[in-house]
Amino acid sequence: MAGCGVCHTDLGYFYDDVPTRHALPLALGHEISGRVVRTADDTTEWRDKTVIVPAVIPCGHCELCSRGRYAICAKQKMPGNDIQGGFGTHIRVPAFGLCPVDGSRLDDAGLELADVSVVADAVTTPYQAVARSGLAEGDLAVVVGVGGVGGYTVQIASALGAKVVAVDVDPGKLDIISGYGAALTLNARELGFRELKQAVRDFAKENGLRETESIIFECSGTAAGQLTAYGLVTFGSTMCVVGFTLDKVEIRLSNLMAFDARLLGNWGCEPALYPAALDLVLNQRIQLLPFVERRPLAEINEVFATVHSGGMRRRAILVPDAAA
Amino acid sequence: MAGCGVCHTDLGYFYDDVPTRHALPLALGHEISGRVVRTADDTTEWRDKTVIVPAVIPCGHCELCSRGRYAICAKQKMPGNDIQGGFGTHIRVPAFGLCPVDGSRLDDAGLELADVSVVADAVTTPYQAVARSGLAEGDLAVVVGVGGVGGYTVQIASALGAKVVAVDVDPGKLDIISGYGAALTLNARELGFRELKQAVRDFAKENGLRETESIIFECSGTAAGQLTAYGLVTFGSTMCVVGFTLDKVEIRLSNLMAFDARLLGNWGCEPALYPAALDLVLNQRIQLLPFVERRPLAEINEVFATVHSGGMRRRAILVPDAAA
Repeated sequence: MAGCGVCHTDLGYFYDDVPTRHALPLALGHEISGRVVRTADDTTEWRDKTVIVPAVIPCGHCELCSRGRYAICAKQKMPGNDIQGGFGTHIRVPAFGLCPVDGSRLDDAGLELADVSVVADAVTTPYQAVARSGLAEGDLAVVVGVGGVGGYTVQIASALGAKVVAVDVDPGKLDIISGYGAALTLNARELGFRELKQAVRDFAKENGLRETESIIFECSGTAAGQLTAYGLVTFGSTMCVVGFTLDKVEIRLSNLMAFDARLLGNWGCEPALYPAALDLVLNQRIQLLPFVERRPLAEINEVFATVHSGGMRRRAILVPDAAA
Repeated sequence: MAGCGVCHTDLGYFYDDVPTRHALPLALGHEISGRVVRTADDTTEWRDKTVIVPAVIPCGHCELCSRGRYAICAKQKMPGNDIQGGFGTHIRVPAFGLCPVDGSRLDDAGLELADVSVVADAVTTPYQAVARSGLAEGDLAVVVGVGGVGGYTVQIASALGAKVVAVDVDPGKLDIISGYGAALTLNARELGFRELKQAVRDFAKENGLRETESIIFECSGTAAGQLTAYGLVTFGSTMCVVGFTLDKVEIRLSNLMAFDARLLGNWGCEPALYPAALDLVLNQRIQLLPFVERRPLAEINEVFATVHSGGMRRRAILVPDAAA
């Protein structure tokens, strides 16, 4: 294990009674990078390779996988949910879907192997959501919630040519992301919803963008964020549900009909998309370093508490103590 | 005007304060068939043709139309909403999108021109929803609400090779549709939701269908129906929002993420799909006659009241009095 990112999902399991599929006790953690130190006899080609472990590992050979429906493979394994997770020194995972990391490209980008742990989930999950949304050059994208996942969503959408509006309730997060792809930042706590909506509309107009077919990414994983995102849905919009919350929201579902709009749920990212997402990182079209912070694994309890209290600006990457 | 169908949407305008886009007074009615009696100088080729008028008429030449986004064309005209509707003897409509009706094929199918008025909207709207859903041979489809639009949804999905479960709260509607493509009917008032869900699962198993990737059509246009439909969403499901209601529903939106599922809103049907939908009718793969009832236009007030009170099993088609 080189590093394992601490995700909102881990906090859900730990603090909010979201059940893990594997019975407790269970090591959490699903944003994993490391070096392969031991293999089965039929996967020796992976030995000593530096890799990212997908956050969702499909079995690769069931009927669903054979049709490319990896996200709903019934035998998929998510570390820290179905199998032991990455908050440890070693982990045993299937070889299917491992994403090789080129050490020299890593060096060139000024990154360590631990840093790219967050590519699993925090970068790849929005990457798949963006890919599925059909986002293209010149599109208007709105990202609601620009913490870990949402921040990368801004960067990815911007790298792929969209003009991105970032919405959050935390001015600090908005400040940071304005330097990394957000062309406009809006504080949903300061603005009334009508003002927020009008600001998005004005932004589209000023930038010569279409006001229809906006692509909205809900990354806050909060009911309030979902209501904001859903309220921004307009004619032909695509809203991607990337964040998770157990909370319900009260919405007028028929707006989707009246607006000819759609809502796309997105679970993880299929392994085949990992290399392209990693390329964006290694080509430095997405910046990781301003958004991550390595911490010794021994401090996991303190780190969890800090993240949970909102006291951590960057995504924590827990690094096994020998390496830290 | 040969005939104009009475739709749930008309009742919404009339009884439920749903605003029309054109100021009142306004003739309602958007399911229109008839004969072209007069044309502009540049559309004389339509003269004397029997046609169906699309319920949503895109302008055909704006930037959105040029990209095939007809449903969100800002200049679209819906009779009985943007322009005068079909509850009259004559109507003036753009030539763009008119769907020719072959009189001899109509005769062969035992239909009158008035009968195919319901192809606009009641048949074509679900036809577009089905087309967009990607429904294919052997899929599991669930239709919630099998009144006017929902009944045709059952027939279309079945004609295209899906195994269809019909859900409604009206045993009469379920009885009828079981003879027209519903392989299983479920009464959502008699069954608890868990039983309903289990019945759909059992049906899939017994028929060797996939339990994942079900395609669910919400056609009731009620909050209760939307909650039922949303509750049936499972791994990889597509839920199409076809019915309209102003009511809100309280749902856990993140289920879409956890299930990797999607919600597709559907507004009307693009004119290019009308001929294929009409073909299903003229080839008698969809039956209209058991589901329609011609009534004189002079009885419009009585017909509206009867439909509104739920006293009408079939879709009323109002026929101008001279023709009735």
